[in-house]
Amino acid sequence: MDVYSLPERARYQKDRPYLDIVHDHHAFRILVFNFEPGQELPVHQHPAESEVAIMVLKGEGVFTGAEEEIQARPGSLLICKVSEPHGVRATTRMQVLVTIAPPF
Amino acid sequence: MDVYSLPERARYQKDRPYLDIVHDHHAFRILVFNFEPGQELPVHQHPAESEVAIMVLKGEGVFTGAEEEIQARPGSLLICKVSEPHGVRATTRMQVLVTIAPPF
Repeated sequence: MDVYSLPERARYQKDRPYLDIVHDHHAFRILVFNFEPGQELPVHQHPAESEVAIMVLKGEGVFTGAEEEIQARPGSLLICKVSEPHGVRATTRMQVLVTIAPPF
Repeated sequence: MDVYSLPERARYQKDRPYLDIVHDHHAFRILVFNFEPGQELPVHQHPAESEVAIMVLKGEGVFTGAEEEIQARPGSLLICKVSEPHGVRATTRMQVLVTIAPPF
């Protein structure tokens, strides 16, 4: 049983989002993106069968996809297949938890 | 792409934790437990190969396991195999996100 304190692990960097890989084993990959305002995980998709969940822990921004942008606040949770276009853009400092299952 | 607002889905009940199953597809099951103070998900384990992640969204309590208790606050994340003893007990109103991959 491993316990992590994500607030203590938060780091930010000027040139790109800070990526923190928390866990990467057989069933799922769990990672945290820390964004400065304006930084983003651009809309992308992967040719795989996996699913992804993106949970907003801190800060505000938008979930981005093929067409729409959807407000993302603490407690907002996006779920989609990794083959669907998905992304995140921060408007404030923002911390999101990303879970990918199974890893690919 | 599905987006959920977990704060808006929060419900609490007196006799037992309120369980909200958000997503249950092939790659992972994602659910939320809402606890009143003193309520718990008792220590338990499953004879399966899956992994589980428990993320504290709101409130405080402890992660419980075979031996130790570990403080659980917003941003605390527990990861273990479902075959390892694990549980949660709330000391305040508490909302946790549980991800199980693969579902079993």
